[in-house]
Amino acid sequence: MVERNVDVAELVARARAGEARAVGRLISLVESDSPVLRTVAAALVPHVGRAQVVGLTGPPGVGKSTSTSALVAALRAQHLRVGVLAVDPSSPFSGGALLGDRVRMQEHATDSGVFIRSMASRGHLGGLSAAVPQALRVLDAAGCDAVIIETVGVGQAEFEIASLADTTVLLLAPGLGDGIQAAKAGILEIADVLVVNKADRDGADQLARDLRHMQSLGGHSVEENAVAAAWRVPIRKTIATTGEGVAEVVAAISDHYAWLQGSAELATRRQRRAAVEIEAIALGHVRARLARVHDSAALAAAAADVVAGRTDPYSAADTILQAG
Amino acid sequence: MVERNVDVAELVARARAGEARAVGRLISLVESDSPVLRTVAAALVPHVGRAQVVGLTGPPGVGKSTSTSALVAALRAQHLRVGVLAVDPSSPFSGGALLGDRVRMQEHATDSGVFIRSMASRGHLGGLSAAVPQALRVLDAAGCDAVIIETVGVGQAEFEIASLADTTVLLLAPGLGDGIQAAKAGILEIADVLVVNKADRDGADQLARDLRHMQSLGGHSVEENAVAAAWRVPIRKTIATTGEGVAEVVAAISDHYAWLQGSAELATRRQRRAAVEIEAIALGHVRARLARVHDSAALAAAAADVVAGRTDPYSAADTILQAG
Repeated sequence: MVERNVDVAELVARARAGEARAVGRLISLVESDSPVLRTVAAALVPHVGRAQVVGLTGPPGVGKSTSTSALVAALRAQHLRVGVLAVDPSSPFSGGALLGDRVRMQEHATDSGVFIRSMASRGHLGGLSAAVPQALRVLDAAGCDAVIIETVGVGQAEFEIASLADTTVLLLAPGLGDGIQAAKAGILEIADVLVVNKADRDGADQLARDLRHMQSLGGHSVEENAVAAAWRVPIRKTIATTGEGVAEVVAAISDHYAWLQGSAELATRRQRRAAVEIEAIALGHVRARLARVHDSAALAAAAADVVAGRTDPYSAADTILQAG
Repeated sequence: MVERNVDVAELVARARAGEARAVGRLISLVESDSPVLRTVAAALVPHVGRAQVVGLTGPPGVGKSTSTSALVAALRAQHLRVGVLAVDPSSPFSGGALLGDRVRMQEHATDSGVFIRSMASRGHLGGLSAAVPQALRVLDAAGCDAVIIETVGVGQAEFEIASLADTTVLLLAPGLGDGIQAAKAGILEIADVLVVNKADRDGADQLARDLRHMQSLGGHSVEENAVAAAWRVPIRKTIATTGEGVAEVVAAISDHYAWLQGSAELATRRQRRAAVEIEAIALGHVRARLARVHDSAALAAAAADVVAGRTDPYSAADTILQAG
């Protein structure tokens, strides 16, 4: 239910003042197909670009939502405003200000410095929902210092999340057999910070050693950069349930952001992110246009011309595209 | 290897005079991505619309290529010019005037009244190759009275073939367990003529009875039509290896064409076919354009504008699409 006569400028002002309801309304608007979406996108322009976007990914069972909650707590301890987008590839549902089933998240539910939003990940085209980058922009404009996008690491989703993030944190844990798997899938290469969670469990040290060994073999730990010193991907150990080691992860994330800002890499990543986003929107427009063509009188007329031998299908397609 | 300076008008004239080499060249041209493709399409316009397009489909092992060869022989006995497009979903290869591995087809290889062409079925978009309808138009323009499109009945291909055909012949055979399966897949509903091949085998009569029973249950046998009498889908039995029953199938195909011509259905089907073809071409154009956008300077500039806070992604997408 999206009203047409919404005062977008007022909503943006209220969101920037920290009003969670306004933030939620704006995200709902960018998730909708309403024309208001464009008004919102335009209204956000002067206010975006400040937030550090942190992608948090890793295999199921690694402790992602617990880690997200611990990260939020650590960031809040620094009086930073934090946004969380929990992207769930398995859920077709979206919306809601709170993740009811995430008990650990509830401790932040009443904190006015935290905005939490659950989103269905899949757009109708199968890729990451086009609304995710827009929701990011809303949280950015709302004055968040950091926005965490959390996703279940299944298939393509973690790569898509990484493409949206300034900093990608990959969570692993002992006993999941994911260390080697992750390396195989190329996922290690997109990580800016590696975290071994459940560090109190057997195998945690071994997993950290394995990761370090893989780094030394594959050269994954070093990103060459012409301008700045290379970034060495740090490996941190945490017990997210107790908060142990989380401050060090926050520090690593912060270090990475400082490195990004001091190098050309931040501009490169954001440029790439914007290009991906623009392309996705353009593709969506074109698909919508072709869908309209499908039942159009223009197509019927062009087909009739082809059948009657007045034109060929290629010229007819040109006519259709020009008319659309 | 497609020459640029090909004399399309002369090729079309030679094809219409029955020169197999010219027909083959034209099909190669429409299979290519060369700009000559459009010249060929335009040159065919005055000469198309005469051929009856017969789609022949059915499960593997049903005797399709034998049946096609028998149909060709029966049509040739009536001194009709016949084209055959053998579409093979499993083959990425295309071209050639003869199907070397199809012994039965070789009997027609030296017959100047028969054009036989093998085509890879899959276009790069996954659907039926866009070249198939163009090759149909070449054979039509070359003066074929009938063009048979034969495909292995796997998945979507048979429905796509049916969408191109005036008359769809579905081949079944006893012992393949396909009668019921076909009905389940909805394939019976696209058949205009049903053929039980291998009629000398056990179970052929039972299969024919089952099909008749399914028709009576499902009402598949009758296509309601406001203008003309309804078409009752005939069931014919053949032994393609000996030619037994094939004349009756040819008669049924001919009856169906007469029915199509006497009703609004021929115009409806050809209109639908042309619309599908135009849409596919338009979609191809748009995809090519978006692929060009992907690496364009315009996209890079638009992304830079978004990053710098000069515009929003939606406005940037508009700019890209207008520039493209």
